[in-house]
Amino acid sequence: MYNLSDTIVALSTPQGEGAIAVIRLSGKNAISICDTIFSSKNLKDQSSHTAHFGMIRDEKNNIIDEVVITIFKNPKSYTGEDICEISCHGSSYIIQQILQLLIRKGARTAQAGEFTLRAFMNGKMDLSQAEAVADLIASESSSSHTVAMNQMRGGISNEIQHLRQELIDFAALIELELDFGEEDVEFADREKLKNLILKINHYIQQLKDSFRLGNAIKQGINTVIAGRPNAGKSTLLNTLLNEERAIVSDIAGTTRDTIEETLNINGVTFRFIDTAGIREASDTIEAIGVEKAYDSIRKSTILIYVYDRTQLNSDHVWNDIQKLKHEGLFIILIGNKTDAFFNLSDARITELTQGQRGQDRNMDWSTIEKQYPIINISANSGENIETLKEVLYKTVLHKKIDLNATIISNSRHYDALHGAYESLSQALENLKAGISGDFIAMDIRHALQYLGEITGEISSDDLLESIFSRFCIGK
Amino acid sequence: MYNLSDTIVALSTPQGEGAIAVIRLSGKNAISICDTIFSSKNLKDQSSHTAHFGMIRDEKNNIIDEVVITIFKNPKSYTGEDICEISCHGSSYIIQQILQLLIRKGARTAQAGEFTLRAFMNGKMDLSQAEAVADLIASESSSSHTVAMNQMRGGISNEIQHLRQELIDFAALIELELDFGEEDVEFADREKLKNLILKINHYIQQLKDSFRLGNAIKQGINTVIAGRPNAGKSTLLNTLLNEERAIVSDIAGTTRDTIEETLNINGVTFRFIDTAGIREASDTIEAIGVEKAYDSIRKSTILIYVYDRTQLNSDHVWNDIQKLKHEGLFIILIGNKTDAFFNLSDARITELTQGQRGQDRNMDWSTIEKQYPIINISANSGENIETLKEVLYKTVLHKKIDLNATIISNSRHYDALHGAYESLSQALENLKAGISGDFIAMDIRHALQYLGEITGEISSDDLLESIFSRFCIGK
Repeated sequence: MYNLSDTIVALSTPQGEGAIAVIRLSGKNAISICDTIFSSKNLKDQSSHTAHFGMIRDEKNNIIDEVVITIFKNPKSYTGEDICEISCHGSSYIIQQILQLLIRKGARTAQAGEFTLRAFMNGKMDLSQAEAVADLIASESSSSHTVAMNQMRGGISNEIQHLRQELIDFAALIELELDFGEEDVEFADREKLKNLILKINHYIQQLKDSFRLGNAIKQGINTVIAGRPNAGKSTLLNTLLNEERAIVSDIAGTTRDTIEETLNINGVTFRFIDTAGIREASDTIEAIGVEKAYDSIRKSTILIYVYDRTQLNSDHVWNDIQKLKHEGLFIILIGNKTDAFFNLSDARITELTQGQRGQDRNMDWSTIEKQYPIINISANSGENIETLKEVLYKTVLHKKIDLNATIISNSRHYDALHGAYESLSQALENLKAGISGDFIAMDIRHALQYLGEITGEISSDDLLESIFSRFCIGK
Repeated sequence: MYNLSDTIVALSTPQGEGAIAVIRLSGKNAISICDTIFSSKNLKDQSSHTAHFGMIRDEKNNIIDEVVITIFKNPKSYTGEDICEISCHGSSYIIQQILQLLIRKGARTAQAGEFTLRAFMNGKMDLSQAEAVADLIASESSSSHTVAMNQMRGGISNEIQHLRQELIDFAALIELELDFGEEDVEFADREKLKNLILKINHYIQQLKDSFRLGNAIKQGINTVIAGRPNAGKSTLLNTLLNEERAIVSDIAGTTRDTIEETLNINGVTFRFIDTAGIREASDTIEAIGVEKAYDSIRKSTILIYVYDRTQLNSDHVWNDIQKLKHEGLFIILIGNKTDAFFNLSDARITELTQGQRGQDRNMDWSTIEKQYPIINISANSGENIETLKEVLYKTVLHKKIDLNATIISNSRHYDALHGAYESLSQALENLKAGISGDFIAMDIRHALQYLGEITGEISSDDLLESIFSRFCIGK
């Protein structure tokens, strides 16, 4: 599908007017094609990693632009091939003229991700590293950046390679047994193999577990704000977002890429799910139904349940939460309207707060607080909003993120790990049942195949296409 | 106003996600600042025009990105100072992290155009060349590109320098006379001076004349389509534009910058003025008034007058044009609805076409055609649209554009040339009137000042600010 023998060209910087644009060529004719349009010097005679100022002229000798061409000679380049980077003036007209000229001279327009595909094909990086390049470019927060950077620098690859190697060694012994056929020798120590599989599966399970978090970091952590009408959910969201927006707007160029209702706290992105259905979740609790609202909560990592302290007592809150909770959902309770609350009569305050479990209440506040953090705020005045942010951030930290550990953030990797896990579990059962070596060998081969897919040691054109077509042009 | 001693930094590629982004530093600490964040190599020890792959790390030793840094050492750089260009992954997050890191390390955010300002200050280019950089980036057609490129490569500067030098030599002789005061010597040959001033003013006039065209090329050539209601003006415009749009859409990235109702013919941009008032110009002819419509026509270079061949005879057309024409306006007559015309009865066709001047008509077609090109088209079927395009293009060529000649396209230059012209005319009059040398010397000094403003030999902070603030950041 991909022709790797020709020379590809693309604009590698974003579209639009700017001071500089960079056009990149890669392939065996990259330098000689540039030489035909660069009138100032013979690029072929220059060493790798050098930059050359000069003029690009078309076939009629008209000057298209004054440029700097930097050359990188294979294998010391991004793709592992000869690369020329043409840094020209950032004018759409000039960019088009240079691209068209290069195509007339024999280059071909690169497909999305084709430079990185070539880097993969030429062994400059494995598949999971290549995928991390796209993640890195798309990363919007320091945590997603760190996860992508670790992956690009081979974090996952090294682990997977290591696991594969151990399995391959054992698989070889088992295959050897099979070669001896009837002779009933056992080169592979069954007990050692069991332990190895247990060890590997334990590790794979850890990686699988990291996916929920890794995916949340990459996509942002889905956070639902729910509560009865007029609990102050919108005010809370606005207070959270407005403060943050002021910070974001100091940084030029980030705003256009941020999504409405995304909040970055200490480098972690929280993505607020803002469906009316959810916002009015307590309504829907009463009404029962509105499956979609529940569905959103089910897909979320955090639920911020907001209640009006001047209206609800501990039983109301407890009952609402029982209807909303599910396994894996981290719930934070927000007692809003603290300012108004303290203007209530003493009798009313007592009524709302002092209920005793087993007597007038099913649940008292202190029992609830043992299970869920309760933060009393005023969304209006901003009181305690910082505490809420801290708790949100710690919710992620509680899950013991070591951002420098290997974290799976790619669902393709998750699926492959899952497949490897299942195959190894099968192998383990077969081992325990004393089933013959050829079945075990097959299970292990399957596991090896799954693990190989992650790093791309095993890949197909379809897989490559589905991965690289998601890249931007020029990468 | 501009501090030239510190090191400036900016993103030089357009905002937005892309494969690559380039961050540029310029100044005496550019290389040493980069060295503090680049962990792979000592950049100070590297030669100019070399590219270095490595990692950027922040103060906590976290990897921000894998980058290529290209260094250009003064004076062999765009600004004439030390320059580092950091080519990083095109992620907004990474760009912001690197910019902020560099600022913490002592760089300052560059103002718009500040790199080019420094190039000017350090004598890498003069002011008219610097201005051409911005024009070059903004150019949308091959003609505006050619004009900007010639200017950037010093076309205007060389001419102006040459004129100034000749004047300076003469001015020196006159000033010498003044030094001798009472002695009544004449070092400067009055006759030669007259001839020189005449020669220079003749040349300045040529440059001034080129401005109308140069400005039209830069801004696009204002073209009004006028005619009575239902003459087919909109259909014509759509037919012209639709064909062109199909071509434009083949070229990625140009569309977003093109303006509605702009037509590029063979590299020349025609900018259609599309006010209802103008479109219905013949109505306004009848009604008289609608000053705005006439104003638009007055500012235009070309008028396309469309008439319905099945309705108007030569007198109607002639009378309309008399009301619309003005000096310098190039008029093209478009006889529309040719297909319907030939379905008319012979008698009606005769009536519309065969009128004889001096008998039943004030004007016959053949007399009109001697003054204005007439093209019979069918806007509906597209018949003869190509001929119209050719005539539009030749209208520009008729004005004898040699795009490689020096063409003034900047109104600041025009104003300065005008000032120089007036001063020299004054000098000439004073010479003829035998007025004493000190007045003549003053006139010549004024002229020199005006000419010096074009190339920036004479400049002020205000002037520089007004020029460079129009640049994009990072250039």
